[in-house]
Amino acid sequence: MKAQDSNKVKNKNTHKELYNRAVKVITGGVSRNTIFRKPHPIYVASAKGSYVKDIDGTVRIDFANNMASLIHGHSHPAIIKGVTEQLQKGSAYTMGTEAEILFAELLTSRSPGFEKIRFMNSGTEAVMTMIKASRAFTGKPKIAKAEGAYHGTYDYAEMSQTANPSNWGDINKPNAVPVVQGTPQGVMDEVVIFPYNDTERTIQLLDQNADQLACVLIDPVPHRVGLFPATSEFVEAIYKWTRKNNVLLVFDEVVTYRVNYAGAQDSYSVKPDLTALGKIIGGGFPIGALAGRSDIMKVLDPRETFLRHPHSGTFSANPISTTAGRIAMEMYDEEAVLKLNVLAMTARKQIEESIKLADVPVCITGAGSMFRLHFKEKAPNSYREAYQSKEVKAIITELDDYLFFKENLIMINTMACMFATTLMQNDVDRLSEALLRGLKFVKPKIEKLS
Amino acid sequence: MKAQDSNKVKNKNTHKELYNRAVKVITGGVSRNTIFRKPHPIYVASAKGSYVKDIDGTVRIDFANNMASLIHGHSHPAIIKGVTEQLQKGSAYTMGTEAEILFAELLTSRSPGFEKIRFMNSGTEAVMTMIKASRAFTGKPKIAKAEGAYHGTYDYAEMSQTANPSNWGDINKPNAVPVVQGTPQGVMDEVVIFPYNDTERTIQLLDQNADQLACVLIDPVPHRVGLFPATSEFVEAIYKWTRKNNVLLVFDEVVTYRVNYAGAQDSYSVKPDLTALGKIIGGGFPIGALAGRSDIMKVLDPRETFLRHPHSGTFSANPISTTAGRIAMEMYDEEAVLKLNVLAMTARKQIEESIKLADVPVCITGAGSMFRLHFKEKAPNSYREAYQSKEVKAIITELDDYLFFKENLIMINTMACMFATTLMQNDVDRLSEALLRGLKFVKPKIEKLS
Repeated sequence: MKAQDSNKVKNKNTHKELYNRAVKVITGGVSRNTIFRKPHPIYVASAKGSYVKDIDGTVRIDFANNMASLIHGHSHPAIIKGVTEQLQKGSAYTMGTEAEILFAELLTSRSPGFEKIRFMNSGTEAVMTMIKASRAFTGKPKIAKAEGAYHGTYDYAEMSQTANPSNWGDINKPNAVPVVQGTPQGVMDEVVIFPYNDTERTIQLLDQNADQLACVLIDPVPHRVGLFPATSEFVEAIYKWTRKNNVLLVFDEVVTYRVNYAGAQDSYSVKPDLTALGKIIGGGFPIGALAGRSDIMKVLDPRETFLRHPHSGTFSANPISTTAGRIAMEMYDEEAVLKLNVLAMTARKQIEESIKLADVPVCITGAGSMFRLHFKEKAPNSYREAYQSKEVKAIITELDDYLFFKENLIMINTMACMFATTLMQNDVDRLSEALLRGLKFVKPKIEKLS
Repeated sequence: MKAQDSNKVKNKNTHKELYNRAVKVITGGVSRNTIFRKPHPIYVASAKGSYVKDIDGTVRIDFANNMASLIHGHSHPAIIKGVTEQLQKGSAYTMGTEAEILFAELLTSRSPGFEKIRFMNSGTEAVMTMIKASRAFTGKPKIAKAEGAYHGTYDYAEMSQTANPSNWGDINKPNAVPVVQGTPQGVMDEVVIFPYNDTERTIQLLDQNADQLACVLIDPVPHRVGLFPATSEFVEAIYKWTRKNNVLLVFDEVVTYRVNYAGAQDSYSVKPDLTALGKIIGGGFPIGALAGRSDIMKVLDPRETFLRHPHSGTFSANPISTTAGRIAMEMYDEEAVLKLNVLAMTARKQIEESIKLADVPVCITGAGSMFRLHFKEKAPNSYREAYQSKEVKAIITELDDYLFFKENLIMINTMACMFATTLMQNDVDRLSEALLRGLKFVKPKIEKLS
């Protein structure tokens, strides 16, 4: 099939026809399970700012922003301009570019803990490199991570992300539950699972593995745990513990870097030793990054006689992703961060009003420009509290479908919103009004639950 | 610093000044060790086709093509056009696109073994997913891989990539040598290292681990082993063995897919169960893919009641990479593959002539549009034969610098070339003539070795 034929084909296709073609060649018809919906995914024609038009011409307001990665919505003119210019000069070389340096200068200037940085291709790669660098620096093999927290698809990092009541075990010593069948026992053995924000139990578990731990991995506002921030007490206690035990404190800020100008880490009095980045820092293009203390980052330095962590990557720091990312982050300055957080706070207040009016046991958690609805009277404080039964999950899917198909709103299918600077007050009004109708729509089912 | 200031800064900078800025913010001043050179990397201003202009205005002919990833050289007009158009419509959504389907249709139509495909962000992610899918399908934890072979940075896949005489152990049972300090013992225990193309020893090692093996991982023309193809006997023997032992045969074709229209695997009578892809299939943009048997790929299918390998990825199958990749692969049709392989063969013949004229003990290995020089009289047949002492490595670096700075040619720093369709006969003439002068230049040092 020639390139010019594709448009003709497209105009003839319905979503169902496209999906029928997709399942013939792509497993499940999707490369990302997040975009799958029953009976089939919906296909995009084009998107601008906060509006996404599908191939039928239906326009939806986007509160998901490609899983929190588009801080300025779709097709921002400044990013298009920068990328279009760079395209004429090339997209990747076996040599250096100033694009990488300019971007590194910007990011290291934003966050005091980012003494040095290196770029990768995804959040998964960033977290993997962060863990490997922690092992190389400390010479120890284990990591500790929170039950339920998502950190990409590296086996060690994904342990217990989908733990459930049948396998999560005693809260005093949560099981390390693999996400993928056939995960080697060695991986389970090297991961210590702790209950998020539970300082006493966590410190106890860390104590039991002090000699073996390379790092404690924390997402400061973990979406899958429940999208509530780590308490200062929790972060400070772990920080203090890691100082005593030659263990690194490392943050996954792939999602949360948007929360403050210097990242969610700016909310705490102590700083992580290393930070993994991704999503918004790519300006809409594939990226990952690892930033942190110079002395630790040195394990990656090719000038060292004894190079402890050789590292490369064909597309790492390519001038398209670093140019788009720099432009996006230049525009996401202190004023823009503040403005976006205020808009999200307004949205939360309006939605709380909708919840009250609908009179349903629903609450909201979040931080900065992110929030998530829970089908609970009281905000959850742990993964186990936030955990949803099959019945609750079914209601959430129904509400998500209602909002998507009837109200033309795109939310993340956990009932989470990740705002973009292109959203306006009228979009927020649409959201809170639609949620009022949506919550009323599912109310009979919620009532049956309790 | 504002975006518009960056050009001004650039014009004032020398390579050394740029690097001085880089090392202040980026560990080692580079995000990819492959682009590092002493005393500092050289920075690109722009690139078109096979010509790369640095910030001083020096133009070099590119035989590296961003580590084999640019099959049509730099800034190809058709790719620029396609990407520029897609940019206006957006670069990533939390929904589906036809771009992914069109590309999946093209790739599955090329290779008979690609019943289904899924896209990722890098070759590293593709190999990691391939290994995890093999474990999920077989329920077994171990993998077998070749000593010296590079398969990205996933711990299991990188084992023994840099093994050396001090640690590689007995050839009958090569040690699993970690690349990164602090690699958990569990990783070493789960990886069986075999000597490439050594059928007898390999089968013996596989036999010893038959019950535990999920897959045997093979790059059919492994660059770091020595860039010579797997023999038919070797591939067929392993294939036969895997059929008997419920083990998958999986190929890493991230580099080698360029070798034939249907990949290097088309050179063999048997086909791998799964194949990892990357590099050229992205058309110059970050990409990875996993393709293979439907029944195995099913472990990734979100429609399954028991999903064995949940898998997502923020930028996976984004419409920029899939559009650029589709256009690149449409242009890399059977005729283009053949033409490129003929040009590379011509280059090899001319370089062999240069070697004869220079009268040095140097030989060439390779396949399709890739080849590599070895400082040996006879072509190596194994990683241990191809292994270079520190002294030989120093001569190669000297030759690489000579070619880069004096002859204005870009080769991969292992003395390898990965051709692009934009290369012409006069570029090949420049290469063979420059190599003649280069080999004469290092000849006294080579002679001192023996």
